[in-house]
Amino acid sequence: MKNTATLLITCPDAKGIVASIAHFLHQHNANILHADQHQDAENNLFLMRVEWDLDQFNLDEIAFGQHFEAIAAQFSMQWQLKLSEHKPRLALMVSQYDHCLVDLLHRHKQGELACEIPLIISNHLDTKPLADFYGIDFHHVPVTKDTKVEAENAQFKLFDDYNIDLIVLARYMQILSSNFVARYPQCIINIHHSFLPAFIGAKPYHRAFERGVKLIGATAHYVTEVLDEGPIIEQDIARISHRDQVEDLLQKGRDLERVVLSRAVRWHIDNRVLTYANKTVVFD
Amino acid sequence: MKNTATLLITCPDAKGIVASIAHFLHQHNANILHADQHQDAENNLFLMRVEWDLDQFNLDEIAFGQHFEAIAAQFSMQWQLKLSEHKPRLALMVSQYDHCLVDLLHRHKQGELACEIPLIISNHLDTKPLADFYGIDFHHVPVTKDTKVEAENAQFKLFDDYNIDLIVLARYMQILSSNFVARYPQCIINIHHSFLPAFIGAKPYHRAFERGVKLIGATAHYVTEVLDEGPIIEQDIARISHRDQVEDLLQKGRDLERVVLSRAVRWHIDNRVLTYANKTVVFD
Amino acid sequence: MKNTATLLITCPDAKGIVASIAHFLHQHNANILHADQHQDAENNLFLMRVEWDLDQFNLDEIAFGQHFEAIAAQFSMQWQLKLSEHKPRLALMVSQYDHCLVDLLHRHKQGELACEIPLIISNHLDTKPLADFYGIDFHHVPVTKDTKVEAENAQFKLFDDYNIDLIVLARYMQILSSNFVARYPQCIINIHHSFLPAFIGAKPYHRAFERGVKLIGATAHYVTEVLDEGPIIEQDIARISHRDQVEDLLQKGRDLERVVLSRAVRWHIDNRVLTYANKTVVFD
Amino acid sequence: MKNTATLLITCPDAKGIVASIAHFLHQHNANILHADQHQDAENNLFLMRVEWDLDQFNLDEIAFGQHFEAIAAQFSMQWQLKLSEHKPRLALMVSQYDHCLVDLLHRHKQGELACEIPLIISNHLDTKPLADFYGIDFHHVPVTKDTKVEAENAQFKLFDDYNIDLIVLARYMQILSSNFVARYPQCIINIHHSFLPAFIGAKPYHRAFERGVKLIGATAHYVTEVLDEGPIIEQDIARISHRDQVEDLLQKGRDLERVVLSRAVRWHIDNRVLTYANKTVVFD
Repeated sequence: MKNTATLLITCPDAKGIVASIAHFLHQHNANILHADQHQDAENNLFLMRVEWDLDQFNLDEIAFGQHFEAIAAQFSMQWQLKLSEHKPRLALMVSQYDHCLVDLLHRHKQGELACEIPLIISNHLDTKPLADFYGIDFHHVPVTKDTKVEAENAQFKLFDDYNIDLIVLARYMQILSSNFVARYPQCIINIHHSFLPAFIGAKPYHRAFERGVKLIGATAHYVTEVLDEGPIIEQDIARISHRDQVEDLLQKGRDLERVVLSRAVRWHIDNRVLTYANKTVVFD
Repeated sequence: MKNTATLLITCPDAKGIVASIAHFLHQHNANILHADQHQDAENNLFLMRVEWDLDQFNLDEIAFGQHFEAIAAQFSMQWQLKLSEHKPRLALMVSQYDHCLVDLLHRHKQGELACEIPLIISNHLDTKPLADFYGIDFHHVPVTKDTKVEAENAQFKLFDDYNIDLIVLARYMQILSSNFVARYPQCIINIHHSFLPAFIGAKPYHRAFERGVKLIGATAHYVTEVLDEGPIIEQDIARISHRDQVEDLLQKGRDLERVVLSRAVRWHIDNRVLTYANKTVVFD
Repeated sequence: MKNTATLLITCPDAKGIVASIAHFLHQHNANILHADQHQDAENNLFLMRVEWDLDQFNLDEIAFGQHFEAIAAQFSMQWQLKLSEHKPRLALMVSQYDHCLVDLLHRHKQGELACEIPLIISNHLDTKPLADFYGIDFHHVPVTKDTKVEAENAQFKLFDDYNIDLIVLARYMQILSSNFVARYPQCIINIHHSFLPAFIGAKPYHRAFERGVKLIGATAHYVTEVLDEGPIIEQDIARISHRDQVEDLLQKGRDLERVVLSRAVRWHIDNRVLTYANKTVVFD
Repeated sequence: MKNTATLLITCPDAKGIVASIAHFLHQHNANILHADQHQDAENNLFLMRVEWDLDQFNLDEIAFGQHFEAIAAQFSMQWQLKLSEHKPRLALMVSQYDHCLVDLLHRHKQGELACEIPLIISNHLDTKPLADFYGIDFHHVPVTKDTKVEAENAQFKLFDDYNIDLIVLARYMQILSSNFVARYPQCIINIHHSFLPAFIGAKPYHRAFERGVKLIGATAHYVTEVLDEGPIIEQDIARISHRDQVEDLLQKGRDLERVVLSRAVRWHIDNRVLTYANKTVVFD
C-alpha cells in the first residue's frame, strides 16, 4: 500500500514557482515520486501536480497547510493536498443499461480504482442483484417529472449520509437539475455516448447512424450547468461501416463507454485532473 | 495492367437479384474477381459492386448495355459500368496549404491512384512549382467576392476542356456556389478538417482547441448544397492532449487530412463508393 | 428472434460458383440477408458466407444436404450449414484472472453472444461465486504436472456431458496437451496477451516492458499444435509510454484482452470465420 | 523564432535534484517554458528535460557549463545543453522507395522540423530530381558487397564535410557495418516496416501477410549493433483484413512509415528523447 501525498496547484504563471515548491518539499524531506506541470501561455496559467512518498516527510496534513501558506500566498495559488490514505468515496448512479456499472465494480474489486464505492443509486431495480453481489448498498430512487425535486433531495441526503466525494453517472438517463449540478461542482462525471461536441443530447447513436459517420465515440466529462458542455476528461472512438446497423453502434458504443468512463474516473481518483477555462489538464 | 469491368448497382431489394446477375455474368464468361453487396433493410435497398476480368468476357461496353437492360428493368436498377481502361480524370483544386496536394501527387506518381491528373487549379500561385515538378498543367484562377461568378465560369471551362470526371478540393478554401455544386453531383470530394458533424464551418481546429476535445479529426465527403453536410466517405482521428497548442493541432491535423482525403479519392476512383440517403456505402 | 441459415463454403476458385449457389437458393425461395465472399488468387481458393431467412425457404436441414450435394460435388466444396436455432454451446476455461470471464458472461447476459454457456471449468476456485451469480455450472479441475492427463480426461468428459461446441480459454494459464488440441480442431479460441507474433510464450507484458515497445497488444487465435502459432482471428493494440510500468501494461492489457477475445468469440459464434493456410477470413 | 535552451539530464535518483535545478535556473533568471521528468524506480534513475526562454537568462553556453558543473557533479549527472539557435544538421539516406524522403522534405519546407537538411545520400539515382527540387545536395554512393567499406568511408567523409548531427535512414535498404553504427551512437534513426519485435529482418510485410496478422506496423528506432534491436522511439499500426494482399500491406505500410519516422525525427530534433537500458523516454 502506497502512502503518498499529491499536491495540485493552479496559479498565474511566474518565475520561481517550481523552485519554491521543490525547495519546500526538499526542505521537509519529501521523496518526490512524480511531478508534472503545464503552462498555458494564452491564459498565463501555471498548473502542477506533484506526488511524494510520505514515509520520511516531516509535516502532517495540518502542518503542511500552515507551512505552505506563505508560498501559496506569494504566487496566488489555488491548491489542494490529497493523501492516498483518504480514499475518495464514490456514488454510482445508473438507470437500466448496466455495462458501465458492471465494469466499474469489477475494476474496483480488482484493485484498479483507489476509492471506496459505498453507494449505488438507481431509478430502476434492475441492477440491485449486481449491487448485492458486490456487497454495495443499493438505493432505489424513482424519478418522474413530478417527483424530481423530492428525488434529488433524497439523493442529496444519501450523498451526505455516505460522505460521498464523487458522483459517477454510469449511464444514468435523467437530466440533473441546475440545483444538483451547482451543489457538486467538478464532482460529477458523466459518460456521453458520442464524441462531443457532435451529437449533444438524446439518442446520439441513432443520429450518428442517420448522419452516416464512419466513427462513433464516447466522451467522459464533468457535468456543468449546460448539458453536455462540461470540461471533457476523456474521449475515444470506434470505427464503423455501412454494415453496422444502429444495434451494432450500440454494441460497439458500450465497449467505448465503459473504457472511457473508467479512465476518467481513475484519473479523477488519482488526482490527475485539473480544470480551467472549461477544459481539463490530465496529468498522466 | 489489369483489364477489368466494375458494375455498380442500386435497386429495391428483392429475391433473385444476385442469382440473375451471377447467371448473366457466368453466361457471358466473366471471371469474377470481387463481389460485395449490401442490403439496407430500413430503406429496402440492395447495393452491389462486382468486378470481373475482361479477358474472356464476351460482351463489349455497348453490347453489355443491350443485354443487361432486361435484368436492369426487371429489378428497377440504377447501374453504372466502369472499365479499368477508362481512367477517371481528376482536377485538383487547392489554395495555399499544399500538404494534401503534395500527398496526392506523390501517390499518383507512385501508382497508388488509378487515374489521370491533368489539371490543377488554384486561387494562389504558391503551388505552381510543384505542378511543374510533376508536369501537370496549372491554372491560376483568383477569386474575390466580386469575381466569383466569372472565376467559377473559368473553372467550368477548364473542367470541360480537360474532360474532368472528378474534382478534388485539396484544401481549397473557397466556398463553391450552389450552381457549381449542382453542376457536378457526386463528383466533388472535399476534405474538412474536423470529425463532422462536429465543428462544421470555419476554423475547426481553433474551435476544437477552445472546446478542449481530446481527439481531433478529418472528414472526406462529397460536396452537396449544404456546407459540410454531404455524404461522408471517410473519417479518422488523432489523439491530442492539453500539451497540444493550436499549432500542434494544425500539424497533427495535416497528417489526418492527407490520409483521409487520399483514401476517399482512391475508393471513388476504384468505384467502391455508392451513396444513398446522404450516406455512403464503401465496398472495401 | 431471427430464424436464419448460414452456409459457409471453401472450394477451389472456378467460374460459375456464385451463379450456381445463388440460383439454388433462389430456386428454393431463400431471402438472402447477407452474402460475402473472398477469393485468394495465390491459393486459388474461393470462400463464401451466405445467410438467409428461413421463413419461406422450402428445404429443411436434411433436404438441403440432399439437394445441395450436386453443386458441392461439382465444385469440390467443403461446406457447413448452420441454423440460428441451434445455438453453439460454449465451455469457458479460466484460471485466476477473471476479467475476460466477467466480460463474456456480462455480454452473454446482455444478448451480445448468440450462444449457450452451460459450463465453466477452472483449475482454481476464485471464479465460482461469479459462475453462481450467472447460474452457470462451475467445475473445479485442478491441474498439476503429474495429474495433467487425468485432468484433461476429466475435462473431455465434461465437454461430452455438456455437448460443448466451442472451448474458450479466457485466460486459462495451462498449456493444453497435443491430445487435447487435436481432439477439438478449430474449436478452441485462446486470448494471448501480446500482438503475435511478438512475444510468443510466457510473460509477454514483462518482455514488452523490457523491450521498450510503444504499443502493447492482444491476439485471439485458434489453438493449434504449436503454441501461439494458430490462425489469428483478431488483434488490437493500446499505446503506452515510458510512464507506464509493468502493472500499467497489465491494466491496459486487460482492456484489450477482453475486447479482442469477445470479438473473436462473437464472430465464431456468428459463423463469420473461415480458416485456410493457417489464416482466417472474417466475414464482418 | 523562439530562442530557448533545453537541458537534458540523466542521473541516479536522489532527493533534491529538482530543487537544485529549479533553484539554479531561477537564480539565473530563466523563464521556464516546459519541464518534464521521469523516474525509473527499478533502475534508480532520474531523467529530466527542461526548456527555458533565453531572453532574460543571464548565462551564455560556456558560463552555463561552468556554473552548472557543481550541481552536475553533486548528483553525478550526464547532461546536455541544446540551444534552439543551433539547429541540428541532418543527412537523409534513401534507396529507391521515396515516400519517407518526400514526406520529410515537405515537412521541413513547411516548418515542421527545426533542423537543417543539407545532404541526401542514396545508393540509387531515382531521388535526385526530388533533391534538386528542394535545393538539397544529392550524393550518389553506390554500394555493393565488395565496395561496402569504401562506400561507407565516402559516406563518413560526407557526414564530416557537411557537419552532420543526425543520420536518418529513410528506407535505406543497406545494412550498416558495425563500424558505421559505432561511429554515430544515438545519431542514426531507422524506420523498420513492422511493429518490432515482430518480423525483425527482411520482407516484414510479406511475412506479416503469411502469418495472417490483423495489424501491420512500423517502428522508428535508433540503430545499434544488433539489427532492429535498438531503442524504439515510436511505433504505430494499421488494421488490415483478409481482403488486403501484400501490395495493400505495402501501401498501408507506407502511410505508417512516413508518419512514424517523422515523429521520431521531430522528437529527436526537439531534444525530447533520452535513452537508457535500450529504451527511450520521449518527453512529449
